[in-house]
Amino acid sequence: MIYFDNAATTYPKPECMYEAMDYAQRNLAFNAGRGSYRKSKEAHDAIEECRRFLCEKANAKSLIFTPSATHSLNMVTAGLSFDKDDIIYCSPYDHNAIVRTLYENARKYSFTIKQIPLNDDLSIDIDSFKIACMKDKPKAIYCTHVSNVTGYILPIDKIGEIVSKFNSLFIVDGAQAFGLVPVDLQDNSIDYYIFAGHKTLYGPFGIAGILCKDENIKLEGSFYGGTGSDSLNVYMPVKGIIKYEPSSPNVVSIYSLYQSARWAFSNNLLQYEIDLAHYFIKKLSNINDVEVYTNLSDNFIGIVSFNIKGMYSNDVAKILEDYEIMVRSDYHCSPFIHDVLKSKKYLGTVRVSFSYFNKRSEIDLLIDAIEEIILE
Amino acid sequence: MIYFDNAATTYPKPECMYEAMDYAQRNLAFNAGRGSYRKSKEAHDAIEECRRFLCEKANAKSLIFTPSATHSLNMVTAGLSFDKDDIIYCSPYDHNAIVRTLYENARKYSFTIKQIPLNDDLSIDIDSFKIACMKDKPKAIYCTHVSNVTGYILPIDKIGEIVSKFNSLFIVDGAQAFGLVPVDLQDNSIDYYIFAGHKTLYGPFGIAGILCKDENIKLEGSFYGGTGSDSLNVYMPVKGIIKYEPSSPNVVSIYSLYQSARWAFSNNLLQYEIDLAHYFIKKLSNINDVEVYTNLSDNFIGIVSFNIKGMYSNDVAKILEDYEIMVRSDYHCSPFIHDVLKSKKYLGTVRVSFSYFNKRSEIDLLIDAIEEIILE
Repeated sequence: MIYFDNAATTYPKPECMYEAMDYAQRNLAFNAGRGSYRKSKEAHDAIEECRRFLCEKANAKSLIFTPSATHSLNMVTAGLSFDKDDIIYCSPYDHNAIVRTLYENARKYSFTIKQIPLNDDLSIDIDSFKIACMKDKPKAIYCTHVSNVTGYILPIDKIGEIVSKFNSLFIVDGAQAFGLVPVDLQDNSIDYYIFAGHKTLYGPFGIAGILCKDENIKLEGSFYGGTGSDSLNVYMPVKGIIKYEPSSPNVVSIYSLYQSARWAFSNNLLQYEIDLAHYFIKKLSNINDVEVYTNLSDNFIGIVSFNIKGMYSNDVAKILEDYEIMVRSDYHCSPFIHDVLKSKKYLGTVRVSFSYFNKRSEIDLLIDAIEEIILE
Repeated sequence: MIYFDNAATTYPKPECMYEAMDYAQRNLAFNAGRGSYRKSKEAHDAIEECRRFLCEKANAKSLIFTPSATHSLNMVTAGLSFDKDDIIYCSPYDHNAIVRTLYENARKYSFTIKQIPLNDDLSIDIDSFKIACMKDKPKAIYCTHVSNVTGYILPIDKIGEIVSKFNSLFIVDGAQAFGLVPVDLQDNSIDYYIFAGHKTLYGPFGIAGILCKDENIKLEGSFYGGTGSDSLNVYMPVKGIIKYEPSSPNVVSIYSLYQSARWAFSNNLLQYEIDLAHYFIKKLSNINDVEVYTNLSDNFIGIVSFNIKGMYSNDVAKILEDYEIMVRSDYHCSPFIHDVLKSKKYLGTVRVSFSYFNKRSEIDLLIDAIEEIILE
């Protein structure tokens, strides 16, 4: 099997992750911070070690662990105070974890959602965005760090400058980026940076988080339950990370994530993926009847979308499975970008997404398969 | 180490759970329902097999997977429509996963929270409760199935009769019960039955669920994101389980839970635990200067709380650690029951909670330790 759906979830994981998971499940799976005994403290310490490490890598001052990037975006959005005059921007590259959360909340709070404009080459149009913000001052700006459809790395540093100028909130979805693309919450004025454990960090499902610029997190709590502390209080604690992390901590996933994240940050995964993407795009560009959705800049990671002219993306993906090649088709939970890419006539795109474990020889087999499909 | 904190999380797990987790992480960790390829479908099928099995065991018509029992109770409560005239009952045995969720939501919706009354022997006073409900008709009744402090099994069948009579909603927290104590959602008129994977089902952290009496779930959605379907829609799907389960499914935990749940349901765990509890209580009752919080009925599982007169519960737990015996002390996230037990003078209780992997010989060592502590 050739697996090219790493943007959905990376597979395989590094061996250290598999080993960490089995080790933690057998030796560390105690209820952290709930008992005074040694094993509970060991579990607690393992969680805090991971928290410190991930904060350091993002230059964040605090980190709320959550079960998924989607949970993270829900928690951030529920924790901000919106009213009906607010204007929120999101980007055309955003995933439904941002888009649906914003649109569903807009039903409740009646705020206005606007889109960050793009240049003709599909890059973010910073100048037009600045002008738009002067007219309609943003309460908050949401965007994905990396497009899960085209692999485009959004210029969060330049968007961050606009954030600073207009004193807005800045929420970045790093589900396709953290561990791969550098980020600095202080430099880039990012208030909340969301990551997923099971994608670019090569960790397990079920663990993710919200990296916060400030130590004093200003989000309203929206998730309630036992914290193993102050138990006679029928309300949530008002301060500290514990306010956002009721329920038994998932120490097994956090420990495993810590090991995989250390592995990810210590290898140059980005350059490896970019090399694969360039190799693939170059070969793909030589094939007639293929439309590739990239601007060939260096601002992308190892995610490449394309279509074969005259074929639906789903049909191409299905045929590729006969070659034991697993790719993703359809709209990839990204509702806006297909208008821009003009890919709706294909019912989406065929998406090929690489990880550190893919090889050029696998790309060669994919190219052969695409050529065969076109010939038939 | 002797581990007696199984009410916090069961440890160890059955070997089949450890093996399932490693197997699933290495072979099944694909993004279920997101790709059309075989591996994605296998992951999807594994999830649905677990869902069917757990529904069957509870006589439920549907099941929403969530990351924790706390998430489940938050989702149910956020999904009900409350207004300021509503009266919600909960029990004095409830955990903060219920209590804080209700009290925090009551801040928003201004509904009234009342407590289900108890008899002198600390059992639920069904007759008084019925009379209370005639005066203050319940919109919803929440209660835990099993007390995490005393192990008391609440009479959910009798409460269910009141639910039917008053046409209320009935939400039961089975975090300390499912897999151990039988439940039938249809017979007991339970609308939503919550379970945790990592406790009585001997599964991993990070997976839990809401078992639903009806196939057509009437909860408002409160959690938004990508569903791998209908991607161009900026709002959530309005029907089906998918409405409540955005984000990448945690197939590894669900598969592991399936294996451990099959193990749990096929062994008579309840009788084994009850036998241990009786054995422990009998020995404990022979010791002077010990206060045991049980009514010696058969309506309890393997959770026993006690105190040594003149000592804080935390101090007893700390000393027991010197004997390599891990127990829990303090208030156990249960804010109401300590008034009833009159255990606040001890700052809570010393809680001993058994699993299938505990032995009588371990209890003997605990009894010896308690006797030594009292003598010193």
